Amino acid sequence: MSHPRGPLSQLRRGHEELVLELLRKHGPLSRGELGKHCGLSRTTLYDILAELVSTGAVVAASQQDGPRGRGRPAETLTLNPDAGQAIGIDFARRGLHVAAVNLAHEIVGTASEPHAADLPWEQRAELAWRLVRTLTGGGLELGALSAIGVGVVGPVGTVDPEDESDAGDESDPGDDGDFEAPHPVQLLLRERFGVPVLLDNNTRLAALGESIWGAAAGGQDVLYLRLSHGVGGGLVVGGSLHRGAYGLSGEFGHITVDEDGAPCGCGGTGCLETVASIRAVLESCRAAGLAADDVPELVKAAGAGDATALAVLAGVGAAVGRVLAAVCNAIGPSVIVIGGELAETGAALIEPVERALGAQVMPVSRHRVSLRRATLGEVAGALGGIALVLHESPLLSRYPAGPDLAPGLLRQEDPMNQSRHVAGRSGARPAKELP
Amino acid sequence: MSHPRGPLSQLRRGHEELVLELLRKHGPLSRGELGKHCGLSRTTLYDILAELVSTGAVVAASQQDGPRGRGRPAETLTLNPDAGQAIGIDFARRGLHVAAVNLAHEIVGTASEPHAADLPWEQRAELAWRLVRTLTGGGLELGALSAIGVGVVGPVGTVDPEDESDAGDESDPGDDGDFEAPHPVQLLLRERFGVPVLLDNNTRLAALGESIWGAAAGGQDVLYLRLSHGVGGGLVVGGSLHRGAYGLSGEFGHITVDEDGAPCGCGGTGCLETVASIRAVLESCRAAGLAADDVPELVKAAGAGDATALAVLAGVGAAVGRVLAAVCNAIGPSVIVIGGELAETGAALIEPVERALGAQVMPVSRHRVSLRRATLGEVAGALGGIALVLHESPLLSRYPAGPDLAPGLLRQEDPMNQSRHVAGRSGARPAKELP
Repeated sequence: MSHPRGPLSQLRRGHEELVLELLRKHGPLSRGELGKHCGLSRTTLYDILAELVSTGAVVAASQQDGPRGRGRPAETLTLNPDAGQAIGIDFARRGLHVAAVNLAHEIVGTASEPHAADLPWEQRAELAWRLVRTLTGGGLELGALSAIGVGVVGPVGTVDPEDESDAGDESDPGDDGDFEAPHPVQLLLRERFGVPVLLDNNTRLAALGESIWGAAAGGQDVLYLRLSHGVGGGLVVGGSLHRGAYGLSGEFGHITVDEDGAPCGCGGTGCLETVASIRAVLESCRAAGLAADDVPELVKAAGAGDATALAVLAGVGAAVGRVLAAVCNAIGPSVIVIGGELAETGAALIEPVERALGAQVMPVSRHRVSLRRATLGEVAGALGGIALVLHESPLLSRYPAGPDLAPGLLRQEDPMNQSRHVAGRSGARPAKELP
Repeated sequence: MSHPRGPLSQLRRGHEELVLELLRKHGPLSRGELGKHCGLSRTTLYDILAELVSTGAVVAASQQDGPRGRGRPAETLTLNPDAGQAIGIDFARRGLHVAAVNLAHEIVGTASEPHAADLPWEQRAELAWRLVRTLTGGGLELGALSAIGVGVVGPVGTVDPEDESDAGDESDPGDDGDFEAPHPVQLLLRERFGVPVLLDNNTRLAALGESIWGAAAGGQDVLYLRLSHGVGGGLVVGGSLHRGAYGLSGEFGHITVDEDGAPCGCGGTGCLETVASIRAVLESCRAAGLAADDVPELVKAAGAGDATALAVLAGVGAAVGRVLAAVCNAIGPSVIVIGGELAETGAALIEPVERALGAQVMPVSRHRVSLRRATLGEVAGALGGIALVLHESPLLSRYPAGPDLAPGLLRQEDPMNQSRHVAGRSGARPAKELP
């Protein structure tokens, strides 16, 4: 799971991908047949195959139905169906979400477990290990595990570790300002699982997850906004997660919506997060005379047509729509996905968002961008972690198309405002559904 | 210049790139030496070489200093110094800009010619042909020309041709709403020059040009804003031009800055373009009692410390800075480049931009993003056209590093607020300098 640079290393990875692609497409092939298809020299091909066999991605077997009469049957090579399993883990602030796929890109299962916000990393890693094992019914082939994709709260990227300013919540255990060194959870998981551990921001990974398996399945240019305790998001650009020059892209929550507004945790003033986070929305409700203690109560009030709830959500939606329009004009996505707990308020929030977006996005783009609610629920980040592995690993690369991914596991009921079920194969809990 | 998909075609292109890379690095090599370096089978390598020789990218020659005594000297292969010339042409609204490079990525020259805004495409293409010929002193090897990269005004992409809504100026000859069909100038140039013609929006190409040879040379994530008759821009994301899902990215001029503002040509209200275009700025000056007829007069007034000019530019700069901050928070670029005629007002505009940007960009990003004035002047788009060809053509791919590009041709005097001279080798005019 190194990240080789330079044309020769890239070419070698290209060769590996080609061989895997040929085996996916044609099924079992002999070395000679592979050689004819791929145009590589015998030496190069045998090198590549030795590597793929040693990593367990490819297995050799005697051909059963081959031509006979010219000595012993030729050995054929085939993809190892047990190999290349990938795991995604989302270390959210107050809970853990895991998901797993096999080499055929089928989701083996997903699971979640809440925990205290201050749980130390050692215990989180231990919890992840236990959860992954239940997920696979205890039958996880760790030797065949290719890599783990992990999401954590806070900026991940190439931010200068010497800079002490910080955009995130200071109580956030993953937000220690030292982004160049391995994250503690990378070391812990690496030791526990014995495979490479790829890391990114969990909200960005949710964007990637939604763009592959969720509301924006198949979308190459996707804008994802999460309205939760914090307000953040992610951009998928040309099918890949966009990180930005210093790992701070997708910070939609810190776009100014009111220059005379409230101070924000980021150090700014009047950021979207100061009006559209869960806390800000509940406080606005309280200030207007509606005592909703949490999002479910707000959802209930909005559903019952409470005028205060609707007015507050209309104001929030207008601010969200203005920000989305600005980003849309800059980037030109085909799909905007809104996730996070506040999206559960449904039309009371989404319709005002749509109105403001429609009013401020360039008229020529208005009918080209589609606004959708997230469908993957709380496992979006874990699924995005898997997508990260699929992106980075030659053994698992090339995405499946969304709906073909795992027939029977992913059932799409309504592409617009319904959720998909993402359920485990063996005892894992189904993903949380949006109402 | 087709755009092959699929692993096999991509691999073939990878092989071509590898062979060219090896010849660039090592100089002349025999077929045997190339074979050792690249790991390709003899058949594949000979195929690739035959193709490269037939397109003129590579030439075969007898080795002069090779080992003797074992038959005739081995034939060596070398890059053809006359081959792979690329041309960029910017068909701006009221003028034509051209630039050319050779296979060594040296700029052969640049040239510009103003014309009436309503000049028909046939005559523009003819003008381009004449200008390119003067540029190369009449010695352009058309047989060795690899491709032409062309910039035009208005959206270019995969916009639905049946949609009649349109974001651009209706008098704009390139803005005919039919974006799927070849642009008329593509057909005309293809016929005239006999090579593939790649097309993109000229402002986006200027963004690409600045990111490779200009103010953001070497930048992988660059935000470019042009303040001219229109207000637009472009994004370079991970070193590549970002087009967006439907060819409408970089429309910073249509981000709302005042919901109660003036109607905009795009159909919106209070867009940045309604306060920051040349016309809007000159009108604001007039309304405040300063009669500046054009940008040079405004530049003069600002330079002389005229209070009205400075106040107007301060207001414009604040609006520009707010928009840049929002886009920065969303995308996280490392460099922001401001170009267009209005950038010539210098600090009077740039300092207010910087203040507003600093106030509204996330504090954690504030010192990580650098604001610069464009340095390529009016040939930025033509140079971006060349970059487009370098991106798309295997024969010319892999960018040179900015400053090493063409020693003696590109002199950088001050990376911050001075321009670089981009002059022709043979009688072409130097690019317009910013003061």
